[in-house]
Amino acid sequence: MKVDGKGYRTIWMEGGKLMIIDQRNLPHEFVIENLETVEDVARAIKEMHIRGAGAIGAAAGYGMFLAAMEAPAEGFDNYMKEAGERLKATRPTAVNLQWAVERQLSGISKGKPEKKREIAGRVAQGIADEDAESCRRIGEHGLRIIEGLSQRKGGKPVNILTHCNAGWLAFVDYGTATAPIYAAHEKGIPVHVWVDETRPRNQGARLTAWELGQHGVPHTVISDNTGGHLMQNGMVDMVIVGSDRTTFTGNVANKIGTYLKALAARDNSVPFYVALPSSTLDWKTSDGREIPIEERESDEVRFAQGLCEGSLRSVLLTPEKSPAANYAFDVTPARLVTGLITERGICRPEEGEIRRLFPEK
Amino acid sequence: MKVDGKGYRTIWMEGGKLMIIDQRNLPHEFVIENLETVEDVARAIKEMHIRGAGAIGAAAGYGMFLAAMEAPAEGFDNYMKEAGERLKATRPTAVNLQWAVERQLSGISKGKPEKKREIAGRVAQGIADEDAESCRRIGEHGLRIIEGLSQRKGGKPVNILTHCNAGWLAFVDYGTATAPIYAAHEKGIPVHVWVDETRPRNQGARLTAWELGQHGVPHTVISDNTGGHLMQNGMVDMVIVGSDRTTFTGNVANKIGTYLKALAARDNSVPFYVALPSSTLDWKTSDGREIPIEERESDEVRFAQGLCEGSLRSVLLTPEKSPAANYAFDVTPARLVTGLITERGICRPEEGEIRRLFPEK
Repeated sequence: MKVDGKGYRTIWMEGGKLMIIDQRNLPHEFVIENLETVEDVARAIKEMHIRGAGAIGAAAGYGMFLAAMEAPAEGFDNYMKEAGERLKATRPTAVNLQWAVERQLSGISKGKPEKKREIAGRVAQGIADEDAESCRRIGEHGLRIIEGLSQRKGGKPVNILTHCNAGWLAFVDYGTATAPIYAAHEKGIPVHVWVDETRPRNQGARLTAWELGQHGVPHTVISDNTGGHLMQNGMVDMVIVGSDRTTFTGNVANKIGTYLKALAARDNSVPFYVALPSSTLDWKTSDGREIPIEERESDEVRFAQGLCEGSLRSVLLTPEKSPAANYAFDVTPARLVTGLITERGICRPEEGEIRRLFPEK
Repeated sequence: MKVDGKGYRTIWMEGGKLMIIDQRNLPHEFVIENLETVEDVARAIKEMHIRGAGAIGAAAGYGMFLAAMEAPAEGFDNYMKEAGERLKATRPTAVNLQWAVERQLSGISKGKPEKKREIAGRVAQGIADEDAESCRRIGEHGLRIIEGLSQRKGGKPVNILTHCNAGWLAFVDYGTATAPIYAAHEKGIPVHVWVDETRPRNQGARLTAWELGQHGVPHTVISDNTGGHLMQNGMVDMVIVGSDRTTFTGNVANKIGTYLKALAARDNSVPFYVALPSSTLDWKTSDGREIPIEERESDEVRFAQGLCEGSLRSVLLTPEKSPAANYAFDVTPARLVTGLITERGICRPEEGEIRRLFPEK
């Protein structure tokens, strides 16, 4: 997608070097970072230079490629396994990390010793390209829902609420929750997006608002407390969120607070859609309560970061001595989800329907 | 309640002068402010030096007293009426403002010209004293609920979630949502409070956390997105919130986001209580949708204020050009409320039960 008119992905190879957009400084600064080692990649994921289901999957894929370039010929496979463990440990809730690492290990294990690095490079590029293509297709499928709402509203702007950033910055390109929005905007269908700021890390206020602004999509930032009131007052036509992990039974782990919006959507008969590439489907877990929920540092809650007098600063919000807790995700039960928008089409969040779209699983 | 061991109210007369705690600087600075004119009081309410249902009711009462001291003998009643209109316009959702102003106007209208100032002083003091006494009684009634939960948990800490600040800082003393918590803590019943930070103004992170910390009540600050996840995982035994206006049919206007917590409480069978003095009951409005919802400046959403290098600073969270919306309250329908805790006892949020407690209305 475009930044100041120039096309970018969130992660890419350039002259043999791995580059990412360092998302910590957005929306105030646009910084490109070079990651040189698999350890650099692990740190960048852990410290959220790069974040979001698809983007960290792609980062893990490229990270495994860097590991393959570093690995000694003697003990190559062991080095790769350890690198994979290191990458998987960075963010425990996201399923894409595991998926990307396993795909690399599986590819490498089948290759001849002298081909392993080449394979790792090809697999990494494949993961990134497929992520972008999946998101593009999610946009096509989701577009139909927005078109339908637009027709029902006689062409008045369709109001879409989203939580966190499941935009192109969270993937390699296009995004998931945003892909149908960008597709509608491109087609001239009037849309307006309510952007949940998404405390504590403000991915909505910082990233989604910035993305939408760069593409000229009308949007309004709101506190995370606001969506219920908007839905009660008919000001939201649909909700679209992303997912960090969706069980094959349709339970959706996503950024903390998603569950509250799903409850409000149900209470006000607002359709609640989850957009996800199949790489985030968890084919082993049925019960949403079994998904591990990452706990992050309490200082993310105690402080807020933003621009002050031209530079990024953190301000302390709470009393010095008050403790804080920081659960990063929650699980929205399938019963609250209207539909899943995947790269193969839209389905209800039920095992049978999901398997019908992905019969090979 | 106590600040560094010394007893305070949020608003009080001292040597003929009206004093308030300027809450904008908490928790980082404790500042006492003298308000000299009714215009000072209106500004202090509007700009939230003093905020919270009971505290602004008391401020309006004292503000009308200052107006009476300023008013010319000729046109006294007109001056007072205009002062009342000025005060009522500062915060449209809160019903206590109207209630306090009407009570002053009604008292003054009955008095002889030479007694009007004295009456206004007595009424102002009465409003403040009654607010404190109501809150103390709310604490006594609510304590029974916490005692019951504590017994059922075999003495393990009772986990209470609260939103915004319905603490003593929001009233003249004790608070409403916090009054049962303080009463339990005083009695040696172990409690732990989950404090919603309550964006955009962070009254939870700033004020409730500070209050609880000053009194040694165990608490943990969480982002507003977190409560649903905690309830899903059995980590909340009850919710207590305050109310800025409750219809006689039991619909509760309170800080934006309250409705979302009520939905989560219902979905997880967690009791959801609203603590309120009867001064916040609206005896004219039946339908919650008729309650006017204040819209505040978008910069409260776009910025966050906190401590940075020893001084209070605001940091910009959103892209410079992204608009934001700031609805200050939402309405929780009576069907989601387990009970109302009033100064006369606890009742279900139904007209019949409410009228039984307040038969004179």
